[in-house]
Amino acid sequence: MKITVHKKCQSHPAPNELALDTVPLFKNVAPEFLDQLKSASSTHDYAKGHVVFMQDDVAEWFYVVNSGWIKLFRQTLDGDEVIIDILPAGTLFGETELFSNHSFANSAEVVQDAKITAYPMSLLRNQISSDPSFAVQMLEHILHGQREQTKEIEHRTIMNASQRLGCFLLRLINVKKHGPVVLHLPYDKTLIASRLGMQSETFSRALARLKADLGVRVKGATIEIDSMDALISYTCSACSNAFPCAEE
Amino acid sequence: MKITVHKKCQSHPAPNELALDTVPLFKNVAPEFLDQLKSASSTHDYAKGHVVFMQDDVAEWFYVVNSGWIKLFRQTLDGDEVIIDILPAGTLFGETELFSNHSFANSAEVVQDAKITAYPMSLLRNQISSDPSFAVQMLEHILHGQREQTKEIEHRTIMNASQRLGCFLLRLINVKKHGPVVLHLPYDKTLIASRLGMQSETFSRALARLKADLGVRVKGATIEIDSMDALISYTCSACSNAFPCAEE
Repeated sequence: MKITVHKKCQSHPAPNELALDTVPLFKNVAPEFLDQLKSASSTHDYAKGHVVFMQDDVAEWFYVVNSGWIKLFRQTLDGDEVIIDILPAGTLFGETELFSNHSFANSAEVVQDAKITAYPMSLLRNQISSDPSFAVQMLEHILHGQREQTKEIEHRTIMNASQRLGCFLLRLINVKKHGPVVLHLPYDKTLIASRLGMQSETFSRALARLKADLGVRVKGATIEIDSMDALISYTCSACSNAFPCAEE
Repeated sequence: MKITVHKKCQSHPAPNELALDTVPLFKNVAPEFLDQLKSASSTHDYAKGHVVFMQDDVAEWFYVVNSGWIKLFRQTLDGDEVIIDILPAGTLFGETELFSNHSFANSAEVVQDAKITAYPMSLLRNQISSDPSFAVQMLEHILHGQREQTKEIEHRTIMNASQRLGCFLLRLINVKKHGPVVLHLPYDKTLIASRLGMQSETFSRALARLKADLGVRVKGATIEIDSMDALISYTCSACSNAFPCAEE
């Protein structure tokens, strides 16, 4: 186990961080707790490639993505990488390694220049032990993450590559729209392929199939969909949830 | 949403249930809470095929498997089934749908004649709100489950079918043994294949490969392994955890 140290000299201090109470877990907490967290926090800008923590590091901090994108991944003993998630701004990470002696179950790396705020895990632990209503909020937060993971296992088991890609696109749109839809991929295609647990070739074939069968057009990072109905019908029939995915 | 009702007349009352404090979550809880749970519980024997609850049923009870095996699964809109887990005796299930208005995220069915005890979810909720140390235990319990799920996502992404089967066998043995090992499959091969997210043909090919390359012999439900070393090296090199899997 290694201990993660936040060297303040590693990067430039960065003000203008995300207001903590915009993060769902902290929306309805005691203002004193928010103040405590803020005054113990440390915000920095990191370039693409910066490793925030490594799998097995002692978990003494948890983090909020202010801007940019963070990749959570695990590495096999053979050295292969499995991407667990790619996190956008507004997301909390590391908070699941809550208990003393816990180490991070995965590594976290910046994949698009990011502003990240670190908060001491000890404050989170104290609040859970002393504020039963926060403990319940934390449980709800963790259970929400667990439901998303169960859905991920389902998708990796039963959906084909085109359906998984279709699901990824539909989640970016999120609401049913009539008529053509234009959307922009949030990060590069290689990373999307890895996030979906696919080889690049599988990803290309999946995209080609969406183009051929469902009229999805791709121009660089821009995706045009003539009608969402066909994509929804093709994708969501292989899922246990109907579109749009209910907040669970 | 449907409400699950435990009709006492559905099956024979069955005494001799598992002592609740052998279930890890309840090992160190207040004796009054255990008494409360016990007196509100209801234990029954169910035959293979009995559905304990369906996905989207309102979650008013949680359950302990006293004996037998329970399958947790989800069904896609197309009617395909994805097995999330197969639970042995001593396991808690349904407890993750803790909060009011929550419905079960998956269905549960008996796959080998089982004795099951049901407990009211309201008691679990009350205890979490009123006993901070139990809230922490519940969080640890849920986080443990989440770590197992992350590992499952990793395996379904990066391991080949033979490695997933190898991992299943190694978890049954659990400790490193020198010399030959004989073990018995806990349930039938079709179910193991589904649990591992494989088609039957893929499972057969995976088994054939373990036989050919690693000297694993199969006689009905009995598996003979000459040396664990080769199997460990073949399987665990594709995982981020070394053998034996640490309790996380």
